[in-house]
Amino acid sequence: MVNYVDRETALCISLAARPSNHGVRFHNWLYAELGLNYLYKAVAPTDITAAVAGIRGLGIRGAGVSMPYKQDVIPLIDALDPSAERINAVNTIVNTDGELVGYNTDYVAVASLLKSHGVDPALTVAVRGSGGMANAVVAALADHGHAGTIVARNADTGPALAELYGWEHSTEVPAGAQLLVNVTPLGMHGDAAEEQAFSDAEIAAASLVFDVVAYPVHTPLIRAAERLGVPTINGGEVIALQAAEQFALYTGVRPTPEQVAAAEDFANTD
Amino acid sequence: MVNYVDRETALCISLAARPSNHGVRFHNWLYAELGLNYLYKAVAPTDITAAVAGIRGLGIRGAGVSMPYKQDVIPLIDALDPSAERINAVNTIVNTDGELVGYNTDYVAVASLLKSHGVDPALTVAVRGSGGMANAVVAALADHGHAGTIVARNADTGPALAELYGWEHSTEVPAGAQLLVNVTPLGMHGDAAEEQAFSDAEIAAASLVFDVVAYPVHTPLIRAAERLGVPTINGGEVIALQAAEQFALYTGVRPTPEQVAAAEDFANTD
Repeated sequence: MVNYVDRETALCISLAARPSNHGVRFHNWLYAELGLNYLYKAVAPTDITAAVAGIRGLGIRGAGVSMPYKQDVIPLIDALDPSAERINAVNTIVNTDGELVGYNTDYVAVASLLKSHGVDPALTVAVRGSGGMANAVVAALADHGHAGTIVARNADTGPALAELYGWEHSTEVPAGAQLLVNVTPLGMHGDAAEEQAFSDAEIAAASLVFDVVAYPVHTPLIRAAERLGVPTINGGEVIALQAAEQFALYTGVRPTPEQVAAAEDFANTD
Repeated sequence: MVNYVDRETALCISLAARPSNHGVRFHNWLYAELGLNYLYKAVAPTDITAAVAGIRGLGIRGAGVSMPYKQDVIPLIDALDPSAERINAVNTIVNTDGELVGYNTDYVAVASLLKSHGVDPALTVAVRGSGGMANAVVAALADHGHAGTIVARNADTGPALAELYGWEHSTEVPAGAQLLVNVTPLGMHGDAAEEQAFSDAEIAAASLVFDVVAYPVHTPLIRAAERLGVPTINGGEVIALQAAEQFALYTGVRPTPEQVAAAEDFANTD
């Protein structure tokens, strides 16, 4: 199959230490579906400063930014969108005529899901996890009006994240938590696939469960919530929404939820 | 059509002020034909220094270099192959694990054609033209053993090119020239399409005619030589050979002449 590329084709990339094929398949499938003259390529840079210079020098339209570069790129670009400034982390760079602006579509996606699911801001929250994605999630929860507790064993990042948003920190899930949020890898494909991030008793006492893990969408946590009749927001919704947001930033075209779902299916049948 | 790209795909580019679609179609068609996981994209850089930084920073495997960048890139790369050093002009950059080496496949192609056509080095030469491509052609002719005359109206570049190789300079085609070489745009598609770079009398007195113009292959000069029974080397041979050489430098795979011809056909039926 000859790659359908010409001199006008806009190039988008991802920058990751260990690139997956997910973004490549997701974006290229949608470009074809929507008839957009774009191409998406994963890059594993050896030097992030040189890589960002490359975005400028070769006129790359956009770049997805993964670990460990989400903070590193900040001094290398020209401006931060409020979504990235809020959490001091960039997962998307957009190059408009040489001006590089950093966004955080994880933050945007979580904030958007809290609104679209009509989540009551009065719900007290327990968030498990204190890594980079937890930062985006807690910021979106705080900005939606929530107060809560960071549940993390890490004695550095757990208290630091809690302090940033005026939340509590604990090593245990507090009694009475109404919205349970998992931002750890518990339940993800691999070693932790069988782990359930919150207990059945904790889930039964809650009114909403939110799992950021997307592979698989039906984690042990989501399955338990469904079994116990507690409403859920799952990681598939997060990843689809953040990818759609990123896609819209690059192309100016917002795919429908059905198109995003079909692109996800294509991306996951690698 | 979904572009067939994954995280392993090697990216090659061209750097030109006014990119054509020819290289994009030629290379991508051959990648598909030979089952190579490569992709070729044309780039019009705004800043050549930044563009070469981009080749390093994003791990681009190779870059074709067109006017006006063939000299500009020399201080920006790490080493010159003898083909580029000979004429102080780079038309191909190869990136091997971060080391950027410059080649000149125009020189290589002309040198190779003089050998493969069994051209007698004793033939005295008249070369029309004194631009960048003329430099590559005269260097290859001189290195093949020829002496001759640069026929050029330009009072700066004509004498300078002649002096570089110990040749003569003239504004007229010298009597007795045995090998006539056109490196001007005379006969090319466009305003000069009907121009014949050498007269019928000059052609009839020669033993070989070499036209570098490739679009069309059958220029007025080549058609006149064929009509007069004088052997020819045409621009289609030059462009195919230089492109095959470039392709082999990027991929390590040398396409057959038949594959190159088919790729040219595809590239020219845009």
